[in-house]
Amino acid sequence: MTAATPSLPRLFGFIAGSEGPWRIETIAAVVGEPVPGAARLHVVADPLAQLPVNASWSLRGITSNERYVEREEKTTLAAKQEGLGRPAATRAALIPIRKNAAWWALTQDERRAVFEAESQHIAIGLKYLPAVARRLHHCRDLGPSEPFDFITWFEYAPADSAAFEELVRALRASPEWQYVDREVDIRLALDPA
Amino acid sequence: MTAATPSLPRLFGFIAGSEGPWRIETIAAVVGEPVPGAARLHVVADPLAQLPVNASWSLRGITSNERYVEREEKTTLAAKQEGLGRPAATRAALIPIRKNAAWWALTQDERRAVFEAESQHIAIGLKYLPAVARRLHHCRDLGPSEPFDFITWFEYAPADSAAFEELVRALRASPEWQYVDREVDIRLALDPA
Repeated sequence: MTAATPSLPRLFGFIAGSEGPWRIETIAAVVGEPVPGAARLHVVADPLAQLPVNASWSLRGITSNERYVEREEKTTLAAKQEGLGRPAATRAALIPIRKNAAWWALTQDERRAVFEAESQHIAIGLKYLPAVARRLHHCRDLGPSEPFDFITWFEYAPADSAAFEELVRALRASPEWQYVDREVDIRLALDPA
Repeated sequence: MTAATPSLPRLFGFIAGSEGPWRIETIAAVVGEPVPGAARLHVVADPLAQLPVNASWSLRGITSNERYVEREEKTTLAAKQEGLGRPAATRAALIPIRKNAAWWALTQDERRAVFEAESQHIAIGLKYLPAVARRLHHCRDLGPSEPFDFITWFEYAPADSAAFEELVRALRASPEWQYVDREVDIRLALDPA
């Protein structure tokens, strides 16, 4: 037996309730059903299947391989982006989205064309680096009945709030967003109780 | 409230033990650890999280969107392929595989290049249609510690057994297979007890 290779966490839970370092400021249903209100949020690695006591709801997602980014884009992104957890990044957005059946019936080349050639999804994100740090989580293949397909967690400094609004506005105006049939936008501030 | 849309099952379980319509003929470890021996196998839609009594092991996978196939390829495949459950298709193969970290670190364009330009994965599969029917299941994003990344279930008639051997031999000889670090090949015969 060889020793197990230590691996980075891939599965993350976003647990809303009365506790957690992040204060929930707003919950807006952009398209479709909202999620229930809650006061605070924890982000945890390797969440238990069981919802903790005191939680009002939780979402789960898993980081995975890239689905659209090509090598040259990855190199450009990697050179500009910064990680989560920067001390000045005391604002966050938790944005779960679901795409419709028409999206999932597209082939890889068709999805890539909508994602980048038509919508400039990668190019738009790149414009806001390094100000906005993000982690994308996939949910659709966690099981057959997940409420969302993706969850993105963004972190930025208060001074970059206007830039972040520009970023989400640009993405929501893109052809890709015609395939989004549920989106909730949850804004948070780091405020350890 | 609108009525829920009935949806096709996406999550499948392969439950090995002393029961099930498929008799396990051989279990071969192609690369890496094998799975334990068992006599028979059930294929079930929407498996319970709990392993049934009498089961010796089970594997789970979820059908998902296509990761590499482009529109023209999909049209060609769709025109030639047949579904599972054909009365004459009394032989099956259950082949779980895992790919290594180098594969998952590749970008989309690099994985597509290895998959088709270098390895002709789609073209090889197409040669054996409609004789060999298949369903691909993804496992890697079901959770952070799945034993395999993919499970493919193949069905074919006894007269097509030699063709099936050619198919798996061609794929295993391809550059893509240099990224496979675990593969088990389980062969079965439909033999309702």
